[in-house]
Amino acid sequence: MTATIQRCSQFTRAIATPTDPFITEHGERLDHAKLAFETWGTLSSRRDNAILLIHALTGDSHAASHQADDVPGWFEGMIGPGKALDTDRFHVICTNLLGGCSGSTGPRSIDPRTGQRYNLAFPMLTVRDLVRAQIRLLDRLGISRLHAVVGGSLGGMQALEFAAMYPERVGRIVPIGSSAYFSPQGIAYNEVQRRAILMDPNFRGGEYDDEQGPDQGLAVARMLGMITYQSDELMKSRFGRSTDARYHEWPEFQKRFDIEGYLHYQGDKLVRRFDANSYLYLTRAMDSHDIGWKRGGVEEGLRLIDAPTLGIGISSDILFPRSYTIEFVDHLRKLGVDAHYQELDSPHGHDAFLVDFDQLNERMGDFIAR
Amino acid sequence: MTATIQRCSQFTRAIATPTDPFITEHGERLDHAKLAFETWGTLSSRRDNAILLIHALTGDSHAASHQADDVPGWFEGMIGPGKALDTDRFHVICTNLLGGCSGSTGPRSIDPRTGQRYNLAFPMLTVRDLVRAQIRLLDRLGISRLHAVVGGSLGGMQALEFAAMYPERVGRIVPIGSSAYFSPQGIAYNEVQRRAILMDPNFRGGEYDDEQGPDQGLAVARMLGMITYQSDELMKSRFGRSTDARYHEWPEFQKRFDIEGYLHYQGDKLVRRFDANSYLYLTRAMDSHDIGWKRGGVEEGLRLIDAPTLGIGISSDILFPRSYTIEFVDHLRKLGVDAHYQELDSPHGHDAFLVDFDQLNERMGDFIAR
Repeated sequence: MTATIQRCSQFTRAIATPTDPFITEHGERLDHAKLAFETWGTLSSRRDNAILLIHALTGDSHAASHQADDVPGWFEGMIGPGKALDTDRFHVICTNLLGGCSGSTGPRSIDPRTGQRYNLAFPMLTVRDLVRAQIRLLDRLGISRLHAVVGGSLGGMQALEFAAMYPERVGRIVPIGSSAYFSPQGIAYNEVQRRAILMDPNFRGGEYDDEQGPDQGLAVARMLGMITYQSDELMKSRFGRSTDARYHEWPEFQKRFDIEGYLHYQGDKLVRRFDANSYLYLTRAMDSHDIGWKRGGVEEGLRLIDAPTLGIGISSDILFPRSYTIEFVDHLRKLGVDAHYQELDSPHGHDAFLVDFDQLNERMGDFIAR
Repeated sequence: MTATIQRCSQFTRAIATPTDPFITEHGERLDHAKLAFETWGTLSSRRDNAILLIHALTGDSHAASHQADDVPGWFEGMIGPGKALDTDRFHVICTNLLGGCSGSTGPRSIDPRTGQRYNLAFPMLTVRDLVRAQIRLLDRLGISRLHAVVGGSLGGMQALEFAAMYPERVGRIVPIGSSAYFSPQGIAYNEVQRRAILMDPNFRGGEYDDEQGPDQGLAVARMLGMITYQSDELMKSRFGRSTDARYHEWPEFQKRFDIEGYLHYQGDKLVRRFDANSYLYLTRAMDSHDIGWKRGGVEEGLRLIDAPTLGIGISSDILFPRSYTIEFVDHLRKLGVDAHYQELDSPHGHDAFLVDFDQLNERMGDFIAR
């Protein structure tokens, strides 16, 4: 073993073909689909040391830097020798989600049947679809059982669903800042974000130009998203009521507070790296999350899980209040599952799982390693 | 005294004329301005029993039904014989705020200089401007001192400002669901709402047609507003994750949860009664709220207040967390003010002050009466 991350690369793999199509939970069909993914650390000869890491709404497969791409990733502080996702021991796999826009098949992909982009003809996706797409990838990689599934937010939803759908294929799960079912308030926030995109005149029913998409709508959606990912406490300490904002891309409406310039900046930043149709599809996938759906309720859904579970809540999370994590951990424990609750004590809100890596390593390390 | 509300009517009064213009805090000038208002109960011969009630963002002067208008008002359960705002004892006055769209001068009023609507040429308004407009009305009504000033949300901000600006003119204040300064998170929510309006192609820089305004943008703004006025707890009990929504005016994006139909309904409802430019101006006025601005900080601002103060927080309020009310009550008490904190224990979120009238009567009654 060395002190550097090994065997790191970016791959793409077909997960659906005309002879083996992907049928979504709602019965729609994809004859062609691929997932982009990256890996860190070496897969053992017994193929039993793989950890599936799953990204959140606007994430991608680039969870950490590696030899082929030294740009830091969204989980940079968690992947590497001696870290919770220890590349000296584990083979970490992170895909770009089906429906995404960073290498995997999504609504802006070309539909081979028409030679045009799918756009809104792309099938509706649920959290269960996102999990099944990744299972298909694991099948093709010859990985029948994972050491662990780890994810935050939308990724945490999938970790729970993975354990419910494929109990025999996962050794433990770590859902962070997530829930057994998405809250109505969360659906409400997502819906407002979708409406900002849908009302942008450049949206054109999803058939927008490559050169001129619904940038304003997507940026406004992101601004609202950012509020829900952070906390008032954080905004108070970072911006307070100051009006020195250095970001002036958006025309002001009667002065401008720093917090506004910050939101504009974050909105514009997302537009440069994310697609509006993917945003619509993946927020709707979040909304679909309900471990009890078509299973007779949440408790019956949780009953399908037997993997040891570490639910991690975030003290200042307003999008997934920690009570939701505590709720499913308590439920699982009552059902006899080896379930634990840990908390990130942080002002960073929902985003804490992308920021407070020291705490997260400490909370997760032993559970992953054991 | 009788058991019915007395002397109730709707009036309009000029508060600015070319010889006595209204100069805003930012130095802009209105040569013509009027406020619409309604009253309940009889003004005493000593003119010492008046209570100024102040509405929130999209409110109006119609706080309760009366002989001239039997439609219930937004504070219906609080005004009348035996209620906290006891019309057997008090003369209650409620104006439509300057900048509003329900009878008072606002951005959609005709600018006499041009014969056209002001629209975005209307001066920027601050909470202090809204208070000074009402002081001008009280001057014209010959009311030199109020028994009390009562308001929730934006109205509560004004109650605090009133006490700081005119300590000799108010006997006590009751700010409900409010704060000594608006939070950066609150500004952020307001900014996203404004952006939804500004990006609507029908907005046309504020010069929209009377027949075709930025309805979609205003509705989306309202949807977000409604989320912040309520609580996840309430949404869970009212809608949960049900999909039986009866409101189908907005085309769905891949199914529809009830909470979404509810937001669409609330958005459309606001569009029928409220103006987009007023929404922009009054959200910006909210943002301006800082009792310490140009006064050397919050503590120095609060030092101007000597009126007995009853700050009422709401247990489930996410827009004005109760900690903000507790904060200014504690401050005032340290400064020697007769200040008290009471709480509405309610799942109704910020809107509790428009819903939980039994609790509110109980919390306020003695303080107002004494």
